[in-house]
Amino acid sequence: MQINLKETAEFLKSHDNYYILTHQSPDGDTMGSGFGLCYALRKSGKKANVLCSDEFPKRYHFMYEGYEPQKFSPETIVAVDVADRKLLGSKLAQYGDYVDLCIDHHVSNEDYAEKLLVYPDASATCEVLYRVLCEMDFEPDKQIAECLYTGIATDTGCFKYANTTQLAHTITAKLMEYGINIEQINREMFDIKSKARLKVEQYINSAMEYYLDDKCAMAAVTLDTIKKTGLAQEEFEGIAGMSVQLEGVQVGVIIKEKDEGKFKVSMRSASDIDVSAICAKFGGGGHVKAAGCSLEGSLDDVKLRLLSGIAPAMGFDLWLA
Amino acid sequence: MQINLKETAEFLKSHDNYYILTHQSPDGDTMGSGFGLCYALRKSGKKANVLCSDEFPKRYHFMYEGYEPQKFSPETIVAVDVADRKLLGSKLAQYGDYVDLCIDHHVSNEDYAEKLLVYPDASATCEVLYRVLCEMDFEPDKQIAECLYTGIATDTGCFKYANTTQLAHTITAKLMEYGINIEQINREMFDIKSKARLKVEQYINSAMEYYLDDKCAMAAVTLDTIKKTGLAQEEFEGIAGMSVQLEGVQVGVIIKEKDEGKFKVSMRSASDIDVSAICAKFGGGGHVKAAGCSLEGSLDDVKLRLLSGIAPAMGFDLWLA
Repeated sequence: MQINLKETAEFLKSHDNYYILTHQSPDGDTMGSGFGLCYALRKSGKKANVLCSDEFPKRYHFMYEGYEPQKFSPETIVAVDVADRKLLGSKLAQYGDYVDLCIDHHVSNEDYAEKLLVYPDASATCEVLYRVLCEMDFEPDKQIAECLYTGIATDTGCFKYANTTQLAHTITAKLMEYGINIEQINREMFDIKSKARLKVEQYINSAMEYYLDDKCAMAAVTLDTIKKTGLAQEEFEGIAGMSVQLEGVQVGVIIKEKDEGKFKVSMRSASDIDVSAICAKFGGGGHVKAAGCSLEGSLDDVKLRLLSGIAPAMGFDLWLA
Repeated sequence: MQINLKETAEFLKSHDNYYILTHQSPDGDTMGSGFGLCYALRKSGKKANVLCSDEFPKRYHFMYEGYEPQKFSPETIVAVDVADRKLLGSKLAQYGDYVDLCIDHHVSNEDYAEKLLVYPDASATCEVLYRVLCEMDFEPDKQIAECLYTGIATDTGCFKYANTTQLAHTITAKLMEYGINIEQINREMFDIKSKARLKVEQYINSAMEYYLDDKCAMAAVTLDTIKKTGLAQEEFEGIAGMSVQLEGVQVGVIIKEKDEGKFKVSMRSASDIDVSAICAKFGGGGHVKAAGCSLEGSLDDVKLRLLSGIAPAMGFDLWLA
């Protein structure tokens, strides 16, 4: 059942002993809304813990500095930024059918909780949570403000993406009153890279090939390359964005060999070209600007087939001779 | 003479036939405040042109789309985001002694104009200009909003740096009402790179060396390297930031050979270490987090001397044996 801000505020005031569930592979928004809510509840005299199937990532250390789990029998289960109970992960799966309240911003929310507050237009769950806290007349402190800020900043690429709302900026202006360390947080969220990540980025840059009057960029990573170079598999996250960073590139492609001769293709558009339509030709799909598909064969074959799908979408006549 | 917002608004209302001067090597803030002011004046029935010693850079094309210089005899000279008349560049130097009004946010403003409106705490001149336009009860349109937004976004690294003010966020929330194309602008400002820039970045990454328990990163570019690789000199702007992107690095150094055996050193701090103090030892200076100096000798010598200055500041005992 969908509820509104006021009902959510009343719910939170009238319950106690909270387990707050975050999604697996936790990002800044689920961590920020989880700890932001936890600290707000604790400051309101409630008992509350934050739970996650994975370890809390080190990069969000400032969110859980000084945090200690409390001992109590859980009575109220709240999920934050968890669009689908499958995303709770293995350790928290046991709570999937007993979520009393879910606070979220994903349009795809599966409505699995007894009560659901979802604003699909919000840039982040932290934006929604801030509005709940206002409804509760709750005054944040510095750590809560940093949690909420981080959720908004990470989900909007530091206010860069199209999902950035006016409210994201307005809320941030207010949160800054509590003395957020913007510079340090943003450096840790957006600038610092691991050696392994730098190595992957360097490989991708060096492997980039340009086609169709340099309007299409393509880089491939084979199992053989990974074996020879020792590139870290887990450092490929979000790497597809690199394929459209060169000026003039309209469609970017990253091809990654998953099993021998089986390739996962990530496609990005930096123009009006709908890459989900291109990927659909190969049995894949996604969004207009970010899509994917799977292809089998030799790498050269896969490249040619992809180009033969991309070329007409870019207005190139019968590209293959 | 320093004047306030109200006096600036009255000045702009009571004058006409404006030449608006921007600084050489124009950035997003001087361009945004220049064109933002120009369009606002024109919409208020005044005549106004934007002037620059350099060509308007292509990346700011959306600011001057549809812009045509008007024909009139200049009566009022306004400089925007120009802290020192030397920064007007060769073509505009003729106006340096006749600037009637300067609108700026640099604490270092040389107070060369007859009237000066400067807010050193503002994140950008566009932030100051927005406040002037409010004082004039002027309603922006989409293009003016995009000009002002771009100035604020570029000067704050898209709201990432410590100079980002609450007002920067509040103003942005208001500007977004005019339908700014945030995604496209930020992609062009922050994500797209030229082939030449990518090449420079790749070189810097590959040349990076790590010292002092990997807490100090250092990369050097010699004249010989530039000759052999064809790296573009003009693409080194802002490259020093790359020296502190690796996790754990506290001090980053980029060494660039200017003339044979003469090196320009850029130093960045990603910690509490004051790099201006380190550079001061070598006759340089700057800010706590960003400083520089010049050194002569062989490259190896220069590196060793720098490390001998950096090591004690990082708490390493007598680093040179």
